[in-house]
Amino acid sequence: MDFSLSPKLVELQQRTREFIASDVIPLENDARQGAHGPSEALRAELIERARRAGLLTPHASVELGGLGLTHIEKAIVFEEAGYSPLGPVALNVHAPDEGNIHLMDVVGSDAQKQRWLKPLVEGHSRSCFAMTEPDPGAGADPGMLRTTAVRDGDDYVINGTKWFITGAEGAAFAIIMAKLDDGAATMFLADMNQPGIRLERLMDSLDSCFTGGHGVLHFENLRVPATDVLGEVGKGFRYAQVRLAPARLTHCMRWLGQARRAHDVALAYARRRQAFGKTLGEHEGVGFMLADNELDLQTARLSIWHTAWLLDQGHKGNLESSMSKVFVSEAAWRIVDRCVQVLGGQGVTAETIVMRIFRDLRAFRIYDGPSEVHRWSIARKLLSNAS
Amino acid sequence: MDFSLSPKLVELQQRTREFIASDVIPLENDARQGAHGPSEALRAELIERARRAGLLTPHASVELGGLGLTHIEKAIVFEEAGYSPLGPVALNVHAPDEGNIHLMDVVGSDAQKQRWLKPLVEGHSRSCFAMTEPDPGAGADPGMLRTTAVRDGDDYVINGTKWFITGAEGAAFAIIMAKLDDGAATMFLADMNQPGIRLERLMDSLDSCFTGGHGVLHFENLRVPATDVLGEVGKGFRYAQVRLAPARLTHCMRWLGQARRAHDVALAYARRRQAFGKTLGEHEGVGFMLADNELDLQTARLSIWHTAWLLDQGHKGNLESSMSKVFVSEAAWRIVDRCVQVLGGQGVTAETIVMRIFRDLRAFRIYDGPSEVHRWSIARKLLSNAS
Amino acid sequence: MDFSLSPKLVELQQRTREFIASDVIPLENDARQGAHGPSEALRAELIERARRAGLLTPHASVELGGLGLTHIEKAIVFEEAGYSPLGPVALNVHAPDEGNIHLMDVVGSDAQKQRWLKPLVEGHSRSCFAMTEPDPGAGADPGMLRTTAVRDGDDYVINGTKWFITGAEGAAFAIIMAKLDDGAATMFLADMNQPGIRLERLMDSLDSCFTGGHGVLHFENLRVPATDVLGEVGKGFRYAQVRLAPARLTHCMRWLGQARRAHDVALAYARRRQAFGKTLGEHEGVGFMLADNELDLQTARLSIWHTAWLLDQGHKGNLESSMSKVFVSEAAWRIVDRCVQVLGGQGVTAETIVMRIFRDLRAFRIYDGPSEVHRWSIARKLLSNAS
Amino acid sequence: MDFSLSPKLVELQQRTREFIASDVIPLENDARQGAHGPSEALRAELIERARRAGLLTPHASVELGGLGLTHIEKAIVFEEAGYSPLGPVALNVHAPDEGNIHLMDVVGSDAQKQRWLKPLVEGHSRSCFAMTEPDPGAGADPGMLRTTAVRDGDDYVINGTKWFITGAEGAAFAIIMAKLDDGAATMFLADMNQPGIRLERLMDSLDSCFTGGHGVLHFENLRVPATDVLGEVGKGFRYAQVRLAPARLTHCMRWLGQARRAHDVALAYARRRQAFGKTLGEHEGVGFMLADNELDLQTARLSIWHTAWLLDQGHKGNLESSMSKVFVSEAAWRIVDRCVQVLGGQGVTAETIVMRIFRDLRAFRIYDGPSEVHRWSIARKLLSNAS
Repeated sequence: MDFSLSPKLVELQQRTREFIASDVIPLENDARQGAHGPSEALRAELIERARRAGLLTPHASVELGGLGLTHIEKAIVFEEAGYSPLGPVALNVHAPDEGNIHLMDVVGSDAQKQRWLKPLVEGHSRSCFAMTEPDPGAGADPGMLRTTAVRDGDDYVINGTKWFITGAEGAAFAIIMAKLDDGAATMFLADMNQPGIRLERLMDSLDSCFTGGHGVLHFENLRVPATDVLGEVGKGFRYAQVRLAPARLTHCMRWLGQARRAHDVALAYARRRQAFGKTLGEHEGVGFMLADNELDLQTARLSIWHTAWLLDQGHKGNLESSMSKVFVSEAAWRIVDRCVQVLGGQGVTAETIVMRIFRDLRAFRIYDGPSEVHRWSIARKLLSNAS
Repeated sequence: MDFSLSPKLVELQQRTREFIASDVIPLENDARQGAHGPSEALRAELIERARRAGLLTPHASVELGGLGLTHIEKAIVFEEAGYSPLGPVALNVHAPDEGNIHLMDVVGSDAQKQRWLKPLVEGHSRSCFAMTEPDPGAGADPGMLRTTAVRDGDDYVINGTKWFITGAEGAAFAIIMAKLDDGAATMFLADMNQPGIRLERLMDSLDSCFTGGHGVLHFENLRVPATDVLGEVGKGFRYAQVRLAPARLTHCMRWLGQARRAHDVALAYARRRQAFGKTLGEHEGVGFMLADNELDLQTARLSIWHTAWLLDQGHKGNLESSMSKVFVSEAAWRIVDRCVQVLGGQGVTAETIVMRIFRDLRAFRIYDGPSEVHRWSIARKLLSNAS
Repeated sequence: MDFSLSPKLVELQQRTREFIASDVIPLENDARQGAHGPSEALRAELIERARRAGLLTPHASVELGGLGLTHIEKAIVFEEAGYSPLGPVALNVHAPDEGNIHLMDVVGSDAQKQRWLKPLVEGHSRSCFAMTEPDPGAGADPGMLRTTAVRDGDDYVINGTKWFITGAEGAAFAIIMAKLDDGAATMFLADMNQPGIRLERLMDSLDSCFTGGHGVLHFENLRVPATDVLGEVGKGFRYAQVRLAPARLTHCMRWLGQARRAHDVALAYARRRQAFGKTLGEHEGVGFMLADNELDLQTARLSIWHTAWLLDQGHKGNLESSMSKVFVSEAAWRIVDRCVQVLGGQGVTAETIVMRIFRDLRAFRIYDGPSEVHRWSIARKLLSNAS
Repeated sequence: MDFSLSPKLVELQQRTREFIASDVIPLENDARQGAHGPSEALRAELIERARRAGLLTPHASVELGGLGLTHIEKAIVFEEAGYSPLGPVALNVHAPDEGNIHLMDVVGSDAQKQRWLKPLVEGHSRSCFAMTEPDPGAGADPGMLRTTAVRDGDDYVINGTKWFITGAEGAAFAIIMAKLDDGAATMFLADMNQPGIRLERLMDSLDSCFTGGHGVLHFENLRVPATDVLGEVGKGFRYAQVRLAPARLTHCMRWLGQARRAHDVALAYARRRQAFGKTLGEHEGVGFMLADNELDLQTARLSIWHTAWLLDQGHKGNLESSMSKVFVSEAAWRIVDRCVQVLGGQGVTAETIVMRIFRDLRAFRIYDGPSEVHRWSIARKLLSNAS
């Protein structure tokens, strides 16, 4: 048992921390961002800064131009990146690109990697992951998939509607989940600038941290050559798991950073602000909230580290990544909710970054499987294990 | 003991409910509203609709043109009004005007009522309540008041900065809390269109339900004639209590309505939406959330009714209104948070009204005394009572 | 709407309160009680005291010798009785007799009332309610009933095992739930001193407030004349509901009294005990717990009153009694858990009455339907209502 | 970062697990235990079994006859020991001896070790730690110490009253905390069989896992030679910290084991027991409780491991051991409370071990510093750190 970080990793952690402080946080109030996230121009500037700092797309393999980080290393670096809502954009470790990079790296063909993955890793393009559909289609239950892909010669013809497609606006390409005649789910790669793809609208969302926001997409007789199937036909759901288990965990890493940021802001305020004859922090009611934040931060971090270590050992870690996802998403939410309470009026206005984190964070208890689906999945695993 | 409503009150409840459904909810997506609340034009239209329905400013005394509702009656009508975020605007029972009307009715002079209160009751103007100050001024602890009023001949000269001043933009007048040389807090009435009052900016806030948003106000040598002191000199803190005890409770009434709305939306979705082979609601995990909503709605309502009844009996109800404020603000928050979770992606986007309620509601655990201040106040009362 | 109590009810409340203080609390440390509750001798003394005070079996009809209390009146009197763990025993309003009296009063024949109900109301005997069975029999799910009753001439012959049968030891008679050949559940009345009934053992339980403890009963070819069927054949489940809806609520009333007692003990300690330079209560962390107790006490009481009022209006109140049961059992538990925490070492030892209340209370979240079953029942009702 | 256990530690874990299963659990229903814990005879038998298994007093240094376990090793072994309420007694790692052994090993003189520590490590004797006093003496706030030690020639004369003294009955000796004339707290070693020490009574407690129960002790002119001062005069409070930081953590380890046991019992029941047409565990409401148990077990374990590792690195770990204490005591409580709920009637009776664990566990949120004192301590550390 050893909780220490290697000197190299400590150096990378420190360097990322300093980069976020010096190069990213100063841009948090930059005007080039809005309800649907940072603009492409702001993103480009952030990417360029990370590139100069040698921190761009650090999770990608060395061959692809990244740092080839292990899961534990990602845990350290992504938490630091998450300290600013713009940090994951800068380091190119944001969702959905981060997960897409991982998936394509594992199952993509060389040609696909060359064409789509390389520019993604280099920060020159963005992607989206088109799985979720409006009622009565696939939501928390992927089995309800309704988008269809019909073989037609050397092509597949795709029809269907997707929504909550993060980053759709401005994405260079999409990974599309559709089902064949026989019901087998399959993933397809497709450039977004095609007549068969229509972005109907952007959805107004509570969060504003994702470049390109969340879009509603229509596929109308979209033709995709069979060579653009991602991986093998019929393995769509299996690949979704390949993508999701680590993607869930990187969400945890980034959100832990944001929760820590909120806590630091609240703590600084509690140290300074007077009320009823002493500082806020000297009131037990407030002090207890700060203590609970620290407890949540610490246990969330340990949960992430443990699951990351398991993944690094070659375990699938499905149970553990579910557990981390539930625990961290709920702990981070408790933290930022307490920070809002400590900050009072400043917690519910843009006077501090905390309101933004509060808005961005809420959906994490929902996406990549709502807490309820994960709890149920954990329960089933517990119940089925012999004992 | 009798929990029944008089036939007259049931009729008023029903009429308000129908008015909200037919005249207010259809305007919820009206373009004339934004980050800082409904526009004056939208407000005017809503007010006009309520006037036609005979529901305008129902809490004002009959002499002033209202319906002279008791607290219990307000509990019924305001909950119905709160069923839409625009309902309190329409009925002219929104904050801060609702509390200001009450306060001015109790302590204002006839001349003040004629000049300021009458147009307010008639829905022709709005007001604001300028008490909260930026750090290191008065926040949760009103004793830290820094805005000063200095006697100068027949006038007072007021200097200071206020923030989180709800409805400041567009308000016809303000009630200003300031302290005299001897430290005694005093309230002043002042028209907003004066050179001594400057609206520096509107604050970006989580909520968007208040006409005029939340502003930062500067008073720079603002001259107020001594005749425009509201009530008596030096009684500012006492009046703040006169205003706050019932104002807290009317907040509870309105938010209960919004929480009920969110619950109804989530319930309808849980009845319809399928996942994993049955409706969402048939999943115990979701069903339990709905049951907890019902428990919270019911106990919150009973808490409001009990405190309202006490106030109607002539009790000050300070302890009870603190208790209702803590309980209802936290119960309503739990409800809307659960609704977001039940709705999944639709809970964190503008696809339903629930995200808006979620955003609007959070601050209620903070304003009119954060939960922590009320818990402390309740504790001190418990500890000081002999037993 | 009226929350006031009639002068007569206030007098009864006050009289009960004084009786508990003067005649019951002094016996709380009486040696005639143990792990399986008060002895018959102690019970007899308590009953005699209540008889002298005119407070015996107050919920029974006037014809039967009681005070014929309405549900609201029971809410007031039973809360006072519950202020001591021995209070319900003294007033003869404890479980299961209280519910059995209610059920027999509604569905029993005149002969049955004369033979079994009258001595019960007079405090001369006790009864038990034999429904729950060991796995795989009927527990939270009554449909799993396995005890059988087979018609044989003018008799029924009953076989089966029951457990958690409260008050079995020393009970004069039992109400037995069994199913006929056609699966129809039926209730039978039977004296306990028969060869066909065997008390195997008493179960060691967390609580110790029920006279006669909780027993394991075997019915072995128990012969019951058809005239001793309670009510009609085949209506067992319906009668269980007749019994349970109000019985759940009277549990709430009594436990509210016990929670209030624990709170009073903790409050007195927090006022007196010093730590870190001030009284415990002056520490916000403790003060907040006391405030939360008061919030829980108040909302629990209002929930009980509301459901009691509904029952008094002739409503079945199934939804509402489920809601009160869940809310009050959980609120009371939170209260007594906080009291233990405030009392520290004295909370987990017999130095105060609180440990005993803590032990007695836990099972209330389980019996008469665990919280989970009630939440599910509430959810189904919500989901099935058209909206 | 490495979460793996060495093969040697895995072997020790496995061996302890098997020992508990084969040698300890079969004695759980042994009659030689009661309200005040296992009898000396039962303890002797358990000790003898552990000695034969080579698992006795494994935390003691090798010189003293133990296995010289590191903190991480203790985390593994003590969790296994805690799987039975009798396990810590068997391995001689129970409180208060475990902490006393640690303290005496660090600060005791050679003569003291020879006379008192050696037989303790060998399992031949027990000890107690006499610090807590009745109101108005030292409780959660040790500064309120009232027991006095007055120098008289070569002796100190001690007077005072202590309570909640775990293991007092039957202990061979006590470590007594008293204050000198100048207020300096000092620890003394004293054999219990002296006229100056009187055990007034045993306190009836919720728990029953400690041999010797919890006693009330009076020191009346107890003469202690100056050579029996433990460590240095005036360092009592400092030593209390030396004892408490690791002692808190070993409590966490043992209780984690008991929580895991309760969870295993509930899980097995949920797999088997039917209700409403499926197993309990297949009901989401129950499945979610089991999932939450797993989440709590896992995060509690990680918190313990992390703090243990820090202590092994030579850190004092005061903040971290406070954090682990709060988190683990509350997580373990949540777990066992959920287990009771899952088990229903069997959870609140002695039908399973869970009721006993439930009773034993509650006090852990109180002793070695109640959660409130630790939260406050954590908050102060957070607030004082520069940031």
